[in-house]
Amino acid sequence: MMAAAKTMTVQERLKALRKVMAEKGIDAYIIPTDDYHASETVGEYFKCRKYISGFTGSAGTVVVMQDKAGLWTDGRYFLQGAMQLEGSGIDLYKMGQPGVPTIAEFLAEEIPENGVLGFDGRTVSITDARTYIDAISAKNAKLVYECDLVGEIWEERPALPFSEAWLLPMGYAGESRESKLVRVRRAIKEKGADAHVLTSLDDIAWIFNYRGYDIEDSPVILAYAYISEDKAIIFTDKEKFSPEAREVLEKSWIEFREYNDIYEYVKTVSGKVLVDDEKVNYALIGNLEMNAEVIYDENPSTLFKAIKNDTEIGHTRETHVKCGTALTKLIYWLKHKEIRGTVNEIDVSKKLEELRHEQDGYLYPCFGTLSAYGKNAAIIHYWPTEESNTTLEDKGLYLIDCGSTFMGGSTDVTRTIALGELRDIEKEHYTAVLKGHLNLGSAVFPEGMRGVNLDALARRPIWDLGYDYKHGTGHGVGYMLNCHEGPNCIRPAFAPDRGHRGVLMENMITSNEPGIYIEGSHGIRIENLILCVKETKETYEPMLRFEDLTLVPYERDAILPEKLTDEELARVNAYHKRVYEIIAPGLTAEEREWLAEVTSEITR
Amino acid sequence: MMAAAKTMTVQERLKALRKVMAEKGIDAYIIPTDDYHASETVGEYFKCRKYISGFTGSAGTVVVMQDKAGLWTDGRYFLQGAMQLEGSGIDLYKMGQPGVPTIAEFLAEEIPENGVLGFDGRTVSITDARTYIDAISAKNAKLVYECDLVGEIWEERPALPFSEAWLLPMGYAGESRESKLVRVRRAIKEKGADAHVLTSLDDIAWIFNYRGYDIEDSPVILAYAYISEDKAIIFTDKEKFSPEAREVLEKSWIEFREYNDIYEYVKTVSGKVLVDDEKVNYALIGNLEMNAEVIYDENPSTLFKAIKNDTEIGHTRETHVKCGTALTKLIYWLKHKEIRGTVNEIDVSKKLEELRHEQDGYLYPCFGTLSAYGKNAAIIHYWPTEESNTTLEDKGLYLIDCGSTFMGGSTDVTRTIALGELRDIEKEHYTAVLKGHLNLGSAVFPEGMRGVNLDALARRPIWDLGYDYKHGTGHGVGYMLNCHEGPNCIRPAFAPDRGHRGVLMENMITSNEPGIYIEGSHGIRIENLILCVKETKETYEPMLRFEDLTLVPYERDAILPEKLTDEELARVNAYHKRVYEIIAPGLTAEEREWLAEVTSEITR
Repeated sequence: MMAAAKTMTVQERLKALRKVMAEKGIDAYIIPTDDYHASETVGEYFKCRKYISGFTGSAGTVVVMQDKAGLWTDGRYFLQGAMQLEGSGIDLYKMGQPGVPTIAEFLAEEIPENGVLGFDGRTVSITDARTYIDAISAKNAKLVYECDLVGEIWEERPALPFSEAWLLPMGYAGESRESKLVRVRRAIKEKGADAHVLTSLDDIAWIFNYRGYDIEDSPVILAYAYISEDKAIIFTDKEKFSPEAREVLEKSWIEFREYNDIYEYVKTVSGKVLVDDEKVNYALIGNLEMNAEVIYDENPSTLFKAIKNDTEIGHTRETHVKCGTALTKLIYWLKHKEIRGTVNEIDVSKKLEELRHEQDGYLYPCFGTLSAYGKNAAIIHYWPTEESNTTLEDKGLYLIDCGSTFMGGSTDVTRTIALGELRDIEKEHYTAVLKGHLNLGSAVFPEGMRGVNLDALARRPIWDLGYDYKHGTGHGVGYMLNCHEGPNCIRPAFAPDRGHRGVLMENMITSNEPGIYIEGSHGIRIENLILCVKETKETYEPMLRFEDLTLVPYERDAILPEKLTDEELARVNAYHKRVYEIIAPGLTAEEREWLAEVTSEITR
Repeated sequence: MMAAAKTMTVQERLKALRKVMAEKGIDAYIIPTDDYHASETVGEYFKCRKYISGFTGSAGTVVVMQDKAGLWTDGRYFLQGAMQLEGSGIDLYKMGQPGVPTIAEFLAEEIPENGVLGFDGRTVSITDARTYIDAISAKNAKLVYECDLVGEIWEERPALPFSEAWLLPMGYAGESRESKLVRVRRAIKEKGADAHVLTSLDDIAWIFNYRGYDIEDSPVILAYAYISEDKAIIFTDKEKFSPEAREVLEKSWIEFREYNDIYEYVKTVSGKVLVDDEKVNYALIGNLEMNAEVIYDENPSTLFKAIKNDTEIGHTRETHVKCGTALTKLIYWLKHKEIRGTVNEIDVSKKLEELRHEQDGYLYPCFGTLSAYGKNAAIIHYWPTEESNTTLEDKGLYLIDCGSTFMGGSTDVTRTIALGELRDIEKEHYTAVLKGHLNLGSAVFPEGMRGVNLDALARRPIWDLGYDYKHGTGHGVGYMLNCHEGPNCIRPAFAPDRGHRGVLMENMITSNEPGIYIEGSHGIRIENLILCVKETKETYEPMLRFEDLTLVPYERDAILPEKLTDEELARVNAYHKRVYEIIAPGLTAEEREWLAEVTSEITR
């Protein structure tokens, strides 16, 4: 046995891994960052890449061979990667830089003739796996994908996450799991399949009307599902469900099997099986293809769950009142000069969490709050660390991007707040971002339009200043589920077309969040969630528009009214009026007085 | 032999065709509308579908069997189709209507077991051919594609078009054919091919720097081309070139072969051959695949020719001055009350043609002028016929959409002109269309954006009124070539992605033509050609913008200044100032005085 893992250094871990590789005859072993479900955030159990390399970034893949090892990561992590890999014996490969080989190019070069490539196929997407297989084919190398070598050497590996799963009552779900299964089964048939395998945790939680908390910021549990005309199986640790909850599901003819049993189970499945190739991992497909014919298409539930039902929409509206109240209270608190010089970015996140807890039905954050003052806000995905944590002063802009899941919905909102005197350029940029935000939010458009068609409405005023923001304008948002859920989105890029892909439909919820980021100076983003609704005023063909779900005032101190058109000014004033009417009742007298002031009519 | 074709009725023609079908053992025969090059307009020689059915619409396909025959056409032609087919024995199949089978569905149902389907593969696209082949596969039917049965019965068939081809001087082309061949050959190699077969007439004319007039509104000649590392062959009637022109080409090692010899020639080609599957016909592919491996990708010349060189841009600017002068003179003439009640839509087209001829270097129209008064303008593609031709009165809006090829470029412009008193709604609609047009035309945007990203900028003000226009916002325009040339376009639809597809690049020319069409009342469209140029003012990343090439005043009598923003008003005034400065010198004193008035500053 190895020495106690706890004290093993990265060099020792690499040595141990190479020993196992040699025993199994594996020449190159790939260690990615993913869990088995392509989740956006992965639990401690899955952090093999961090364990083997010491590199803590959110993206990166390690490849280990006997005489060399490399970490591939992107521009966000070049500095951090170089620091954390120092002395590890692992080389840093800066992805996208000229002359730097891709993993596939590295493998094609380095894998020996008739060699063996290994990875845990549960952590690799089909697309990546296919790229690696192509890369080694010229050398006639073979692939071993049913192995978790890091798992074999990792003593004291954290346990798989265990959270309690609970059933969503009909009053919150708005549609029974039986009804959802009917719709999914119909879709399976329409796509010419006999059965369906699901690996995406949000799809499974949505279909079976449960929630959990196995993953930070994501109210789901680790699970797979198999659905055919007469079977519905959830592969998970069934102890996560109470006996009562299990009984409810079993009465609806839903079976439970052990989490990892899916891999053996799919080997026995025959016929045509519908699988989402953007979500499933390679090991599952490898095993499934032993006896079944795979039909690749989107999970039907992905579109179903993006189109919210009336119950979900009703609760979501209430949730936005609560979220809006908490954030409005936070802004009121932030506006107090006396906290300047004492409160820092992390303190604000904590204060927000307190204020959320004062609201009924608060469950947990949707994601770690981005709390960024001054130049920190120019970093698009900035979370304050102990080192970067900055104390708020009596000037400049502070950006907060936060989301919360309540019993009744999920929110995601960004506000940029003036803490004191602003420079002209900050006001000019804030006003441009606001114009873009209003321009998209007020769009009326024919049915059939996709996010790619509307994206420029938000960017136009920012382009006019010579800037662009390097992120999408909007992402779909789940219902008491993940903060990022497709298929709806508002982005400049083409999405691979799956028929509906990206079409904005009635009752979808999307974010509207343009921004401007000036390195070393300031960052501005304004984000509301917008519900897609039918245009009710008379139009000459069926049209849609958006309704703002988010209810938090904009920053009047950063607005240059003379740069807004009459329509834009009217929109701001109407929104502020609505915010006051809905949010004021939940405030104290002092807060209410302040809100009345900051939402009062803006004139030129 | 049959009776003299001249006097044959449609029934007699069908009978003759069925006789030949029976002799050849063909159970179903398809007759489309296309020529052998998927050209937008086809010459008289190619009008087999019109010959066999009597139906004169621009789109439609006939299928003939022994006991039945059908014409498939779209919504534009339901009425005309029904009228023209009456008594012919050909049924009308209204495409897209519920319960109406597609041609493929019809064939799948009607073709006998082990039957034979026939068509002239030169007139059918690969995509359509594949759909038909799929449709008959369940019946084990076979396909015969090397046959032109209508040609066999069509006595007195018009000859293939014969126009004189002429070489474009370097002073107009800006790049030699030798240089273009180097670029094409490099691209062939980059795509992993040994050779390249071209069938699109504009690509071939562009590469070899010649022009002709075989097709109405299209300065090309019927030709195919084969290009490999050491060969460049033009398949055409070489008599179209003068001996001197042929000598010039032959000195550059360009060979000539007979037009239809391409079909036998490609049977002898081996290796990998690059072919554009959106442009090539099925017969050519069928023959080519006998010995070669086909690589499907866009013709490299399609992107090359869309990016205009400095010589082309210089001449194009001059051409727009000439075109703008002619059209401005026409508008001046139209504004004279004394011609009301006497001049009709066709007269205006004729007058325009006269005014163009007064300009130096005028060659021919790019397309038949759309000249539409009042409610006729609500028909998006309206050409006045003897029946519909309407006399202009002293009120309402008149729309003219016209394009011309000069020695030095092609233009395409639409103006909607007030002939007298306007209704409020006409002004409101005109102003909205102008806003959309200005909104797109003034966009500044990062490199990499596609037409699909910018389309909504033009539509937004029109959507705001509850309308949408059922056509693209913009199409690419050729240089002394076709009016519609990709790959650049500005449309809401996704285009199949060929890497660059739809990306707007520096030196591309595209149209900017939003509209509003109110059936039975009025139609409005405003169109300029816009050149994509680098943004020269400081931006924080590489950006592009548009420059208006078209120089014709907007209709100030239809503008509601109070509906324009300050920026929009400034743009109109700046454009009008530029139009006056450039166009005025080519006008008479009276015209100049009038132009000064209609381009003077608009204020609120």
